[in-house]
Amino acid sequence: MPYYIGDVIEESKRLVIRTPEEFNKTGIDARVRTHVEGIDAQKGLVYLSGGMSIPYDYLVMATGAKAVRLDIPGQDLEGVFSLKNLSDAIRIKSWIRDKHCRRAVILGAGYIAMEMCEALQTIGLDTKIVYRGKLPAKKWDPAFSQVILDEIKGHGVEFVSGKKPLAIEKGKTGSLQLVTDSGVVEADIILMALGVSPEVSLAKSIGLSIGEGTGAVQVDLTQKTSRENVWAVGDCCEVFHKVAGRWVYLPLGDIANKQGRVAGQNIGGSPMEFPGIVGAQAFKVFNLEVAATGLTEEEAAQSGFDPVGVLIWGVPVARSMAKGEKLGIKLVGDKKTRKLLGGQLIGKRGAVQRVYALSVALWSGLTVDEVGYLDFPYTPPFGGAWDAIHIAAQDLARKLT
Amino acid sequence: MPYYIGDVIEESKRLVIRTPEEFNKTGIDARVRTHVEGIDAQKGLVYLSGGMSIPYDYLVMATGAKAVRLDIPGQDLEGVFSLKNLSDAIRIKSWIRDKHCRRAVILGAGYIAMEMCEALQTIGLDTKIVYRGKLPAKKWDPAFSQVILDEIKGHGVEFVSGKKPLAIEKGKTGSLQLVTDSGVVEADIILMALGVSPEVSLAKSIGLSIGEGTGAVQVDLTQKTSRENVWAVGDCCEVFHKVAGRWVYLPLGDIANKQGRVAGQNIGGSPMEFPGIVGAQAFKVFNLEVAATGLTEEEAAQSGFDPVGVLIWGVPVARSMAKGEKLGIKLVGDKKTRKLLGGQLIGKRGAVQRVYALSVALWSGLTVDEVGYLDFPYTPPFGGAWDAIHIAAQDLARKLT
Repeated sequence: MPYYIGDVIEESKRLVIRTPEEFNKTGIDARVRTHVEGIDAQKGLVYLSGGMSIPYDYLVMATGAKAVRLDIPGQDLEGVFSLKNLSDAIRIKSWIRDKHCRRAVILGAGYIAMEMCEALQTIGLDTKIVYRGKLPAKKWDPAFSQVILDEIKGHGVEFVSGKKPLAIEKGKTGSLQLVTDSGVVEADIILMALGVSPEVSLAKSIGLSIGEGTGAVQVDLTQKTSRENVWAVGDCCEVFHKVAGRWVYLPLGDIANKQGRVAGQNIGGSPMEFPGIVGAQAFKVFNLEVAATGLTEEEAAQSGFDPVGVLIWGVPVARSMAKGEKLGIKLVGDKKTRKLLGGQLIGKRGAVQRVYALSVALWSGLTVDEVGYLDFPYTPPFGGAWDAIHIAAQDLARKLT
Repeated sequence: MPYYIGDVIEESKRLVIRTPEEFNKTGIDARVRTHVEGIDAQKGLVYLSGGMSIPYDYLVMATGAKAVRLDIPGQDLEGVFSLKNLSDAIRIKSWIRDKHCRRAVILGAGYIAMEMCEALQTIGLDTKIVYRGKLPAKKWDPAFSQVILDEIKGHGVEFVSGKKPLAIEKGKTGSLQLVTDSGVVEADIILMALGVSPEVSLAKSIGLSIGEGTGAVQVDLTQKTSRENVWAVGDCCEVFHKVAGRWVYLPLGDIANKQGRVAGQNIGGSPMEFPGIVGAQAFKVFNLEVAATGLTEEEAAQSGFDPVGVLIWGVPVARSMAKGEKLGIKLVGDKKTRKLLGGQLIGKRGAVQRVYALSVALWSGLTVDEVGYLDFPYTPPFGGAWDAIHIAAQDLARKLT
């Protein structure tokens, strides 16, 4: 019987493990808070801090990602945090409480920055996002990024654009100050939400193949690396993008979960291949749902497609129930094959709902014409007889002709 | 340029027509509130009430459906209404207002009955549903119907089960009384929400083929009937069910819209086929989302499949954000092909979202194994790393093995 570390599934009898102690009860030797100093892949040995070593038949690399940090003076000062794991979160909360923080600065404007600005603003901090570019969430169409910007500003977050951070120093009025190429920003706490990169130092030390464009461990669809009996899963390795038709780096928790299961099945003797991803992702910021799946026009062109996009403003519910609220939907299709390549949605509701559907359409390789006639559950509180997806897909189909 | 009667699409330049007057402005002769007395299909003539006739080259039958009425004495009394069109709604609202109604009885327990009981209870009427069976919404699994029953009862609606209506009479204390095989129920208004059947009298008069099991006009994928130059669309005709692999009767507004567009394109010289449906449907009752798509186990068996079902209780969001709320999901798969055949969901949120996705999976003919690894946008306010769909599909995959 397989063991899962995860959530309890009601009405199912599977064994659920939540803590290392529970894990140890299964008879499996689980060692947390233990540092791996090195690996001898010839001998099949993992060297731990303190001099101990553990032999292995199968090795699974699940080293994850590391938070990107700016290479500027003062980035290691107290009160400057990156965002990676639970202990970061605990340290950040303690700092805010113990130092009576009033002003927060977030560097970066991706979805983690968006989630953090909501969290900090909501607990009462004056929150500023300092970003080199003009608009947040650059994966999304600029028209949608503008809606995100309006949403965070509307909730009191300040968006300081076009500033390049040069250094972090002890502050005059606050505990810290961020020095940029155009002025100084005072803060009691500074968060670096600049993304992550794959943690591959151990992988490199045993000569695993690393993807050229991605910097992540190369795996096949069974999660096996370039070395026999060594597997890799999660944020340290690549994943196959079904729409792009190539291996990419996309460090997301759901993908890591699936890869772990796939590697476990293969090592455990129930062979399976990971079918790949389509790039589905979403976040919520204040009252806004922001979601995307598949490829942007730019990504599609890089993958050899001939992309065409449409962007329309529809409604998330039947028009009679809409009360003025809008749902933005952008679809991208391929001129050669007429296949759907990607979609983005934004709105106070209904965006995530539709990216679920579009993700399955991408997974299945549907054409834009097919998407224009998909069967959705028409019910006025959740969508019109012609859903926003239909309308956008039919508009796109006309543009592809 | 084609004309659409429908909603304004922002940032699109298409002509939108909302009223007969606007329609007439296009130069097309639109006659509403005009009764068709007969058709001479040999001569290509439609006879109107009042003796006029109109010649045609192409005839589109869009005669819709008629509300099913119980064949019991007193069903034509004032205060007894069926639910079909806008004028029914206006008459019902006037009756409630003019007669100062306090007590409503609804006959039937399908989704229209559910929507009506919420509407009436919400405006302050004591609302009773009188139904022969034990549970509402019989398309859904009994476990889900029980949740619906709890929801309507929790909002004060009384569900009177196991009673067969025998007659409607002038009431003693109220304006009406419903006589059943076990007692009398007093009411100021009685609504018959007993479903609809196709309106095919004109179609039969010109010898159009009628489906044996459905009673609806038979069409091909271009919406053409058995007679040259005669087309049919909407609630009067059949529709092709992609999962069942056969023609069915499913009178839903979104299907009617699509069929109308398909017929129009074919008549107008831009040939296309209607790709069919998968049976997606949903309703909201009080705070509950109820949704279904594809086939139930019973329907699947009737269509020649070897169906297996699973029903689990998951959560609509990441478990850490769930606050005790549950999402019920039932999936049905085929033992022979391992294909997904259908799905049902119920919960305070997230049910419709997931039936969107399952509908695309059905449309695309995905296997249960594929559904277990679909790529959804993992974001805690809308779903866990393993979505309820994944968990149910993986449970089902194990049962199919």
